[in-house]
Parts: sequence; C-alpha cells; structure tokens
Amino acid sequence: MTYGDVMNARQRTSARGEERRAEIVRAALEVIAERGYRAASLAAVAERVGLTQQGLLHHFPTKDALLVAVLEERDKWDAVAAGTWRPELLASLVEYNATRPGIVQTFSALLGESVTDGHPAREYFTERYVRVRASMVAALRTEYGDRLPNGLTPERAAPLLVAVMDGLQYQWLLDPDSVDMPGAFRDFLALLGESSPTG
Amino acid sequence: MTYGDVMNARQRTSARGEERRAEIVRAALEVIAERGYRAASLAAVAERVGLTQQGLLHHFPTKDALLVAVLEERDKWDAVAAGTWRPELLASLVEYNATRPGIVQTFSALLGESVTDGHPAREYFTERYVRVRASMVAALRTEYGDRLPNGLTPERAAPLLVAVMDGLQYQWLLDPDSVDMPGAFRDFLALLGESSPTG
Repeated sequence: MTYGDVMNARQRTSARGEERRAEIVRAALEVIAERGYRAASLAAVAERVGLTQQGLLHHFPTKDALLVAVLEERDKWDAVAAGTWRPELLASLVEYNATRPGIVQTFSALLGESVTDGHPAREYFTERYVRVRASMVAALRTEYGDRLPNGLTPERAAPLLVAVMDGLQYQWLLDPDSVDMPGAFRDFLALLGESSPTG
Repeated sequence: MTYGDVMNARQRTSARGEERRAEIVRAALEVIAERGYRAASLAAVAERVGLTQQGLLHHFPTKDALLVAVLEERDKWDAVAAGTWRPELLASLVEYNATRPGIVQTFSALLGESVTDGHPAREYFTERYVRVRASMVAALRTEYGDRLPNGLTPERAAPLLVAVMDGLQYQWLLDPDSVDMPGAFRDFLALLGESSPTG
C-alpha cells in the first residue's frame, strides 16, 4: 500500500464516520421531536439507524454528547439569519420553517424542556437568546436607527421579535390548519414599522 | 351517631380528601416544573406529599388523571383573563405571572412537551389556543372595532398577542435578569395600538 492508498483509505473511513454521525444526529432529531430529550433513549436512536447501543456509543459516548451535536444543527439553522439579517430575510426563514414541521417540533420540544431544572440544554438556550436578541438589536438599528417608526428602541423591540417567532411555532405545530405562521409573522414585522399591513 | 354526625363526618372526610388532592396537584406542578411530564414519576409526587404510590393512586388512579387535574389548574389561571378581558387586565396578568416563576415554568414545560407525538396534553393545548385566540379576538373587537389602529383585524392580531405572551415566558424563565417580561408585554400592547410606548 502506498502512502496515497493509506490516506485515501483514511479519508474514506473518516467520510463514512461523518456520514454515520450525520445519520445518527438526524435520528436523534426525530426521536427528540417524538418524545422530548429526557424521555428519548439512546437505544431508540440506535435502533433507528440499525446500530447496537454499543455501536452508537462509538460515535457519541454519552446522550449529552449527542445533544451537543443536535444543538450544533440548531446553530446551523440560525446561521441563515445571522450577520446580514434583514426583516425580509427573517420572513423567508419563517416561511422555510413552515415547510419543515419536524425540525421545528424538535427545537420547540427542546426549548420547552430547557426551562426545567438542571436541563442540559438550558445554558445553550440562555446563551442563544442573548446572542439572538443582540443580533436582532443590531439588525433593527441598521434598518431603523435608534427608534423604530413606532417609537420603540431596537433593544425593546428585539425580545418581542424573538418571542413572536417562538410563540407562533407552538400555535402552528399544534394546529397548522388554523395558524398561518408566515402570514402572522409578516403582520408582526409590519407592526414593527416596516410597512402597513395589507389585506 | 345522629344523621347530622354522619353528614359532618362525611363532610370532614370529603374536605380532607379535597385538601389532599390539592396538595398532590401542587406537588405534581412542582415535579413537572422540575422534570417535565414524561419524565415525572408518580413515585416522586407521592414522596413529596408523604404518601406511598399506592396511597396516591387512591386519589388519582393514573398519571394522566393527575395531568388532567394539573391542566384544570391551568384553566383557573386563564379564568382571570376570560370574559371581561381588557389590555390593561392582561398586562396585570403578565405582571402577576412574573411573581410566580414556578407555575410559569410548569406550564411552559408542558406546552413544550405538548408538541411531541401523542402527548396527553396535546389536545388540551390545541383546544385551549382555539379558545384563547377567540377570546382575544372578541376583546380586541370590543376595544378597537373591526380594525386596530395599526390596520390589523382582530383575527390577525390575536395569534400575535398569544405568541408574545408565550414566547416572552421562555426568554424570561431562562434569563430573568435580562428580560423584563411585563415591560416587554406592555410595549407589545402599545404596538397593538393602545397608546404610544413611553421611555
């Protein structure tokens, strides 16, 4: 075997490992959506990807390690809205979310659990909200300056923006036929002073 | 023993039974706040009120029966805002909630779980939101007529109002020092057209 053969073999192994990890994370997202995190078992995740629990532990040594990988998925999701955020882009994100109830269910279930005592995702969500509110403040300031057309400061509007996104997800997950999540979110953006609501 | 003695004894027993049930429900509220419903055990609730699990089953034959009693507590909580609801009254409710994080934690945890598959509280929350949105629509119509000052119909404003209340609770539970829940909610009421935000 040449050096090149060895490296190729290593890369193949590593790529297979990455694929396997991604497959496990997808299964974990499903199991958490179905049961929540505390009630999710590694055995259920392992079964879904055709591994023994021992085989799964090779990729993720603990349930919490798997949770970290799940939350990293969450961060990728947010990344769309980070940095160059604009109201229109955020409205598109909410529209996109309306096409994937499974993933919204996973994270709405995790957020709900995160407020329980000593939950392993609590710190993650607490820090995430600090970050997301700050990023909304920056975006609102870029858009409107120090006061929105309605008179609120960006600092006071940001928690409302985040609350509406989260709160609408619960209403929509429970009753998708009654709740037009993207439409309601656009109404809220209009309230924030972007433009007059139509219709 | 006279008839009166028998009736008094029965009433005492019944009053003791009611007190015991109320005590169990309070313990269940705590355990759900700490762990969520799926991960809560009847044994943990029983232990908290100094009963055996068998003793607890005398009052609530199943875990789901106890959940029903917990959700009836939730309804009492809502009753404050029903019927004669006005923006000012709702702002007071949010202020009151900010003084009792434990109970807000219980119901935020339950709402989060309710979106998971086949959760026993799912139907309850779905129906509750239908009812609460309808009650907000009626209240907004009484307050503003068919259009709010910002141009939205009561039907389109109601889901936003509910979403802000729920969403702010998560941010506040995770980070009470950073999030002024009652202040933010008043800002939102101002956005809905009640008055201009101050400060």
